[in-house]
Amino acid sequence: MKQVVNSNKIAQIGIVVHDIERTSQAYADFFGMEKPDVVWTDGFDKAETEYREEPTDARARLVYFNMGSVQLELIQPNGEQSIWQEFLDNHGEGVQHIGLATDKIDERVRDMDKEGIPLLQKGKYAGDKYAYVDTNEELKVIFELLENKN
Amino acid sequence: MKQVVNSNKIAQIGIVVHDIERTSQAYADFFGMEKPDVVWTDGFDKAETEYREEPTDARARLVYFNMGSVQLELIQPNGEQSIWQEFLDNHGEGVQHIGLATDKIDERVRDMDKEGIPLLQKGKYAGDKYAYVDTNEELKVIFELLENKN
Repeated sequence: MKQVVNSNKIAQIGIVVHDIERTSQAYADFFGMEKPDVVWTDGFDKAETEYREEPTDARARLVYFNMGSVQLELIQPNGEQSIWQEFLDNHGEGVQHIGLATDKIDERVRDMDKEGIPLLQKGKYAGDKYAYVDTNEELKVIFELLENKN
Repeated sequence: MKQVVNSNKIAQIGIVVHDIERTSQAYADFFGMEKPDVVWTDGFDKAETEYREEPTDARARLVYFNMGSVQLELIQPNGEQSIWQEFLDNHGEGVQHIGLATDKIDERVRDMDKEGIPLLQKGKYAGDKYAYVDTNEELKVIFELLENKN
């Protein structure tokens, strides 16, 4: 495998949960922070979510906590087929991905595919592209590429 | 649960693996970084490792990658009873903990215990104290308190 990302900046840790209201309240209590609002990802019309190369109606409820320079993301999937639901079904709740701030996501995804790291899911969130790639076998966790506008 | 930490600075992500040579090489290749040396944690005489309130001969091989402001730690336990081995046996390879930079670790551990968050494992690494606390049920991942000398 050759170098396929141009960033080693960990921007996010993503944790899949069953009950985002309960777990986000626990985080807020533990860290003495305000409980942020829960936001829904968009439906297919806006998010254009594709899971394992098929369009999906998967959506998720999200909560973000700022933890130093890293964002902690809680994710409660809606039950439709997605990489989030797959993790919950196979592993239960826990850390599902590490997010990397990068650019030119489509190009990175093509380069990774050539190196044997297939795309798992892609879509848009608040207008920005994201892509989950299958680093699980090699790196023991799924990495998410996040569009970095900086 | 009331606030029991004085830091929300994520300093580390810990990933338990079966074969640290192989996985650290994969990280080095993927990110285009040098493969760091593997280091062993100390034996009981120096590390004073306690797992679930009992002294243990558990040791681990470690590799650290600097990823922006966060340290990525790969951990290959030596098979003795430890929180690392427990994770590997129950979940397989993956993200086992999130590390928080904090201070006064003994005091934090006592405060957490009062709030129903028991200590899982403690010890010393390179002279600094660390403590894993059982946040798994509430926060869906184990947090590690790391002594912050800054």
